[in-house]
Amino acid sequence: MHILVTNDDGVTAPGLLALAQEMRKLGQVTVLAPDHNWSASGHVKTMDRPLRVRDINLGDGSPALTTDGAPSDCVALALLGVVKEKIELVVSGINPNANIGHDVTYSGTVTAAMEAVISGVPGIAVSLDSKPGHGELDYGPAARVAARIASQVIAYGLPEGVLLNVNVPCLPEGHIKGILVTRQGLRVYHDALDARKDPRGRPYYWIGGDFPTGVAEDGTDFGTLAEGYVSVTPLQLDLTSYKALEILKNRDWDL
Amino acid sequence: MHILVTNDDGVTAPGLLALAQEMRKLGQVTVLAPDHNWSASGHVKTMDRPLRVRDINLGDGSPALTTDGAPSDCVALALLGVVKEKIELVVSGINPNANIGHDVTYSGTVTAAMEAVISGVPGIAVSLDSKPGHGELDYGPAARVAARIASQVIAYGLPEGVLLNVNVPCLPEGHIKGILVTRQGLRVYHDALDARKDPRGRPYYWIGGDFPTGVAEDGTDFGTLAEGYVSVTPLQLDLTSYKALEILKNRDWDL
Repeated sequence: MHILVTNDDGVTAPGLLALAQEMRKLGQVTVLAPDHNWSASGHVKTMDRPLRVRDINLGDGSPALTTDGAPSDCVALALLGVVKEKIELVVSGINPNANIGHDVTYSGTVTAAMEAVISGVPGIAVSLDSKPGHGELDYGPAARVAARIASQVIAYGLPEGVLLNVNVPCLPEGHIKGILVTRQGLRVYHDALDARKDPRGRPYYWIGGDFPTGVAEDGTDFGTLAEGYVSVTPLQLDLTSYKALEILKNRDWDL
Repeated sequence: MHILVTNDDGVTAPGLLALAQEMRKLGQVTVLAPDHNWSASGHVKTMDRPLRVRDINLGDGSPALTTDGAPSDCVALALLGVVKEKIELVVSGINPNANIGHDVTYSGTVTAAMEAVISGVPGIAVSLDSKPGHGELDYGPAARVAARIASQVIAYGLPEGVLLNVNVPCLPEGHIKGILVTRQGLRVYHDALDARKDPRGRPYYWIGGDFPTGVAEDGTDFGTLAEGYVSVTPLQLDLTSYKALEILKNRDWDL
């Protein structure tokens, strides 16, 4: 079992190290992660510039690879041949904040797992549901949850075209209540424009505002996390709204 | 009716101008588009740096706004207040190549329309199915198709949480057979790693390979375009695989 571990926070992030260490208990691990933070960078295929790949060591001294590409580029590079051995599983994370609801198309953590699935390799994205101001995070419990879920995927596989979006409550190990399979819920963003003037009097804009919340419905990623359970959401890349398709095909679209 | 027009090819792209000109027949238009090409850049929310917005003129002399942000940032900036008037519709494009199958999470054209829908505004992404080497493109027929579809959306609205992914065959006006509502099909990528050495002997990598193809099934975006029809695919942001959810919830996930 050869596992690729990547993330969107960059190769020096502690969540990546914790994940790599747990994955090593399940098989051979190659780490190929971005050389800087790509949070909320979306699903990228870098085609307008070439990418560099260089050797680096993780915090525990173990060898890793890093690139100036995005998280999804890391997966593409590895699967296209930068990693010579066949990759059988891609695990991405551990992101310090939850990736739930509408976050999934923005998230570099999740889009790395999407990239794996597009190439026919099972993909798992792992995020920890910490809130801003939490202070230093313990990624150990989430890494062990990721290993538990990865071992299930290794044993039984995943339905074709499906990735797992795993979110772990930020609780000490014994306090996590269990693992539930969920549906994607609704994020509620509280973005606000922060318009400022630079020292030369010219305007610039931050996309600011408050940390996103969500709709805590039963059975959703957001609701399940709020109750202290790990949320495992199977995601697919077919975004068709079949309900809307039935409605819209009865409209008059004549040219 | 106030319409925001954006794209992922940048504010100087001819597809943007053709789209803006047709949209002006339906209402007031504001153009806010990236200052460079963001193809395959994914769904971005730029939060680690501020964004600039400046005035520019399109090729027909009409005023527009441009930013160093991504296509989805253009939509966020406009809706959060850079555009003072209320935006009622976002139309993105016209992309020179089709955005079908798995392209939709990579595509800046499509993710701009996603960003609109997340903010509660109807979004339409428009792409022209030209192939590499086509030479100069006539965006006129696709722009008029976009106007036809936009006028339908203005009149009847869209189901909540749904955007339209419109792909137009690259045919002269009279040769387009009609408009069909479709499901997302399967893209087949032919990416390959192109490993090179720089003048100093150090390796670098292009994500290269051949232009993607697809599976031409009936009722899909790809199949419909191949038959000379415009493909209108309603997309949603709930990526849950409900089929996989039923399978996976019966597995043993005990910690």
